Amino acid sequence: MAWTLGSEQLPDLARGAAILGTGGGGDPRIGRLLVEQAIRANAPVTVLDPDEVDDDAFVIPTAMMGAPTVMVEKIARGTEALAALRALESHLGRRADATMPVECGGMNSMIPLVVAARAGLPVVDADGMGRAFPELQMETFFVYGVPGSPMSVAGERDETVVIDTGADSRRMEWLARGVTIRMGGASHIAEYSMSGADVKRTAVPRTLSLGLALGRAVREAREAHADPVDALRTALAATIYTHLRVLFRGKVVDVERRTVEGFARGTVRFTSFEGDSRLEITFQNEHLVAVVDGEVRCTVPDLICVLEDDTAEPITTEGLRYGQRVTVVGISTPDLMRTPEALAVFGPACFGLDVPFRPVEELVEESSGTVRLR
Amino acid sequence: MAWTLGSEQLPDLARGAAILGTGGGGDPRIGRLLVEQAIRANAPVTVLDPDEVDDDAFVIPTAMMGAPTVMVEKIARGTEALAALRALESHLGRRADATMPVECGGMNSMIPLVVAARAGLPVVDADGMGRAFPELQMETFFVYGVPGSPMSVAGERDETVVIDTGADSRRMEWLARGVTIRMGGASHIAEYSMSGADVKRTAVPRTLSLGLALGRAVREAREAHADPVDALRTALAATIYTHLRVLFRGKVVDVERRTVEGFARGTVRFTSFEGDSRLEITFQNEHLVAVVDGEVRCTVPDLICVLEDDTAEPITTEGLRYGQRVTVVGISTPDLMRTPEALAVFGPACFGLDVPFRPVEELVEESSGTVRLR
Repeated sequence: MAWTLGSEQLPDLARGAAILGTGGGGDPRIGRLLVEQAIRANAPVTVLDPDEVDDDAFVIPTAMMGAPTVMVEKIARGTEALAALRALESHLGRRADATMPVECGGMNSMIPLVVAARAGLPVVDADGMGRAFPELQMETFFVYGVPGSPMSVAGERDETVVIDTGADSRRMEWLARGVTIRMGGASHIAEYSMSGADVKRTAVPRTLSLGLALGRAVREAREAHADPVDALRTALAATIYTHLRVLFRGKVVDVERRTVEGFARGTVRFTSFEGDSRLEITFQNEHLVAVVDGEVRCTVPDLICVLEDDTAEPITTEGLRYGQRVTVVGISTPDLMRTPEALAVFGPACFGLDVPFRPVEELVEESSGTVRLR
Repeated sequence: MAWTLGSEQLPDLARGAAILGTGGGGDPRIGRLLVEQAIRANAPVTVLDPDEVDDDAFVIPTAMMGAPTVMVEKIARGTEALAALRALESHLGRRADATMPVECGGMNSMIPLVVAARAGLPVVDADGMGRAFPELQMETFFVYGVPGSPMSVAGERDETVVIDTGADSRRMEWLARGVTIRMGGASHIAEYSMSGADVKRTAVPRTLSLGLALGRAVREAREAHADPVDALRTALAATIYTHLRVLFRGKVVDVERRTVEGFARGTVRFTSFEGDSRLEITFQNEHLVAVVDGEVRCTVPDLICVLEDDTAEPITTEGLRYGQRVTVVGISTPDLMRTPEALAVFGPACFGLDVPFRPVEELVEESSGTVRLR
């Protein structure tokens, strides 16, 4: 069940991961260039299904950390994430048998592939959220008992920082964020080292495959002159993500965006093509809540994705521009991301939102009169 | 030549170290309580003369880091500095044979004694500046080729951070400051691990003894109803510090103080008792430059010390209050702190001051008509 991922699949994965990035996670097209370089210099990457990882295998996930607005301007050299992995291995006195994404949305779908190609390690087809989130404790790993700490942070001057906060992954996030800000707003990290048994127990499975499948579905629909949003809906229906709902169609009319305390924060407003309806999305790196004409239609941890209206090409928050024509969709997150324990870590209240979590499929059904489906 | 330091000597050491602190370094009276507690629970501390440290002994200095304004409010538990030492030992895979101050001015004269008493280690009678400085690279160790990195930072929640910036001790300072700010503005650190040979080659020798001697000289002068500033002058004349000059006598008329970017920064203004002369001192944790009626009278790395006028009790910058009657003295720093290499690391320009370094004894001699000596 292991499979090989080569450069020719990266455009599809980048597109699919940007959809899962829900506006954040950094633009995966930049990470794609790093993977292509690493595969060219080494070999294609072996991807392991989580079911075939030995229970006692040692997995060290890798990622990039920082504000997406910084990530797209402060381009990585490509060696930093492996430096983070090596620093954590050295601290733990144990070599990794595989790496894995912590966040399969956005650029962080790509960073573990860079590490895998450079280190000759396999990558596990799973992650800790099946989307993107802004903070390090926002992981199914943490929700289900795997601490993020000890973790390592690597910067572009070959410096490394190892942070040990015991089981306190929120404190880990707080300190690592401070280090990342001092490294210029973006860094590379290794964290949540765990056994293969813990991968099977706590990870969202097959999210690299999912990103690849979503990106491929959109491309093939375009090639067949079919509707790419329909293709996405069909692709998702066969997965644990299940539901895609169109939340809105219209134009960007306003973007407020600022990089503060190491995060990209802001609000984007849309108006419908007919001009009779409005959508407002608030974001902290990723889209947090979508409100149509004053009614909540989708909140974290369900996915809110802004797509180009005709092509379904995902648009990240730093790519939002006045006048863009978009289709905004909500995607239901897997069940293990919707438990009370999970919502206590990355539900709306964790982002300061005074909104209860309700599944996107329920919210949209209740308001079905006001949404124009394609 | 090793000697034993017990609790009964701590009040003298605290007073002398506060003089060497040149306004910063944190009030050593708080550190004194931590040492008393540690000695009571364990044993008095063995102090090694630097000459008797084996060349291949392994020395790990320990200290507190942060803004003095925070240190006096965020009181340590007493175990943090040892936690920092243990984290660095673990990272390096080697146990320390001794600890040592990096900064024998202020509270950091005391922190290594806490570690020594708790760990049963000797402390070396030396440090890396023979005073206090605000930034981690401002060390004779760094000037003469011993890197500060790898270093460890410990916080009050038992978290540890290990920072490795190779030979770049300025980058180490930058990252450790960010971590310390996130730990609430004060932390405990272990850094500049080195061999006994490097201690002999790069440290300012016998600065614990010096602090003790200065504090004792002031106390004994008070007990004998003699002039404590004269006693300080006599005590210093027998050391590598050599010169004490009275820069000013008068009252505090204005204090501007703010805690920014992890430092206490500000300016304090004095007027002479006769009202005909003014002194302005600028500080970044420590006093940086003393200007009397527009003329520079003393700059870093020479020591600028604000003393209570009658008792010669040192006043830290956070203790400055309107109306205090003071004698301000300048003390010549040892020759190894005045070399071009040393001034490139902690001369006036390193603090953004557009003033060349000139020895305090020269500056005061040129202006002798305007200073009222006691």
